[in-house]
Amino acid sequence: MLGGTITVPDPLPTPSQDAENLRKAFKGWGTDEKAIISILGHRNADQRLKIRQTYHDSYEESLIDSLKSELSGDFGKAVILWALYPPERDAKLASEALRKKGVKHVAVIVEIACASSPHHLIAVRQAYCSLFNCSLEEDITLYVAQPLRKLLLALVSSYRYDREVVDENIANLEADKLHDAIKKRQLDREDVIWILSTRNKTQLKATFNSYKQVYVKPIDQEIKECGDSDFLSLLQTAVWCIETPENHFAEVIRSSIVGIGTDEDSLTRAIVTRAEIDMLKIKEAYYKENKGSLVDAVIGDTSGDYKDFLLTLLGEGKL
Amino acid sequence: MLGGTITVPDPLPTPSQDAENLRKAFKGWGTDEKAIISILGHRNADQRLKIRQTYHDSYEESLIDSLKSELSGDFGKAVILWALYPPERDAKLASEALRKKGVKHVAVIVEIACASSPHHLIAVRQAYCSLFNCSLEEDITLYVAQPLRKLLLALVSSYRYDREVVDENIANLEADKLHDAIKKRQLDREDVIWILSTRNKTQLKATFNSYKQVYVKPIDQEIKECGDSDFLSLLQTAVWCIETPENHFAEVIRSSIVGIGTDEDSLTRAIVTRAEIDMLKIKEAYYKENKGSLVDAVIGDTSGDYKDFLLTLLGEGKL
Repeated sequence: MLGGTITVPDPLPTPSQDAENLRKAFKGWGTDEKAIISILGHRNADQRLKIRQTYHDSYEESLIDSLKSELSGDFGKAVILWALYPPERDAKLASEALRKKGVKHVAVIVEIACASSPHHLIAVRQAYCSLFNCSLEEDITLYVAQPLRKLLLALVSSYRYDREVVDENIANLEADKLHDAIKKRQLDREDVIWILSTRNKTQLKATFNSYKQVYVKPIDQEIKECGDSDFLSLLQTAVWCIETPENHFAEVIRSSIVGIGTDEDSLTRAIVTRAEIDMLKIKEAYYKENKGSLVDAVIGDTSGDYKDFLLTLLGEGKL
Repeated sequence: MLGGTITVPDPLPTPSQDAENLRKAFKGWGTDEKAIISILGHRNADQRLKIRQTYHDSYEESLIDSLKSELSGDFGKAVILWALYPPERDAKLASEALRKKGVKHVAVIVEIACASSPHHLIAVRQAYCSLFNCSLEEDITLYVAQPLRKLLLALVSSYRYDREVVDENIANLEADKLHDAIKKRQLDREDVIWILSTRNKTQLKATFNSYKQVYVKPIDQEIKECGDSDFLSLLQTAVWCIETPENHFAEVIRSSIVGIGTDEDSLTRAIVTRAEIDMLKIKEAYYKENKGSLVDAVIGDTSGDYKDFLLTLLGEGKL
């Protein structure tokens, strides 16, 4: 749980005890939401998976189905998303995003492809096949038009080298290539997509750094200044998710809260998917950017069990 | 070992016994090649991996290094290839193929991408990163020019759905698309590459079947008649490896043997990589196509320990 914010009790109850207590929380007079939060909100992904398996073995019913029948609204959606095993959860998020269409939604797929480990991305593709009887790539082609399609296909098919290796020559060369594409307004070029979808992340950070050294402006700003299209917006998201996922998710949370009404789906997604990964850094990034605490923002914009659950995932510490 | 030809003794010696006997075979007066063949030639991939681990723990030396220092020539190369764990073996084959260049060599990458399970292909990509400090996709781009590059990149990045699901409408539609591309001599089109690299294999077989129903000639023949280029040759290999890998490998073996001199690298590769997968079917395909037995052909073209080792992998039964 490097950089995560959830906390796990010590000593940890056994999966059987957890399953039994969850069953009790469902079966009493009314549902005991507090108990559900205090159990599931304090277990990591592997622990939750074991609870699901034990629950299924003991009661011959899926825990997810029980949660669905007992909980509702944003609270229910958040708990169910959290109860799923991360690859399965992201496969479902990807499938929903594709069916909703719209660039804001398919950006979820860029998050999964660019802000996860290569291993996790493969696990998501496997889960997608198991759940939906076709590959993620097939559904992307079915639901997304060009040029977004080719960007998404390349990003989800990537299997980046997972160590911190940088070739400075490549960084300089590819910064030049990216600049050439920006200058000519040809950002859907094969070489641009190949660089962003194939190079390892440390290498790409060096390339973006070289870009800024040579061409003064950061590459994400340059992409923004190329114009206002869905493709450019997705490309920017990809750059952010690769370079500083904490800034990207801090921004997802901010924009889900700002203005009239809250975008609960985005808020839930950002907190549920990152609570075990880098939420500490996201809290810091949020504070730096907004001069206020992420926790306070969530408190101000949510209520009831939904609020309690999100705050549980956000852990101790106000920052 | 569905369709494989290797045999494993029952009862099976423990990995420690095997490691000890291999050590004895290396350490005596001269190397005992027969003993090496009788041990390694009769163990499946997981068993060989355990022997390697046990050998390393016992003698603080890698089994592969011992084999390299004790064995030589085509026999040595074949045994070492066989001793490697399949994903590691295929990663090495891919890396060598890229460094040699030439369409005949890069066809090895098409074999790995199209005639393996999606799970194996991912394992090869992982092994490639571990062994060579960069991704297979990065090396393909470094060593292979367009349009071969984009075909190879798409094929190795695929993660096909792994169950037997066919949509007949899609089969008909995509047979038409493929025919359109063939008619217009535009086989490097995005949609052609996407279909071949993304659809599941059962679906593709239905598509090729629909092609033959509607347009009379089989698609591989139509591709051949489009002309004589490296790209068309690779595309044909991809179609074969998807539709009937047994015919493809029977042909690899035949052409490695036919004429003056033997192409030992190809012969070794075909037998070592398929002995645990579908060598029974390859033998049948060979017999059907050449009116003679594959085993007899190997006997006629090889000799010594190399011959004995290949025959061990080819198992009992002359066919």
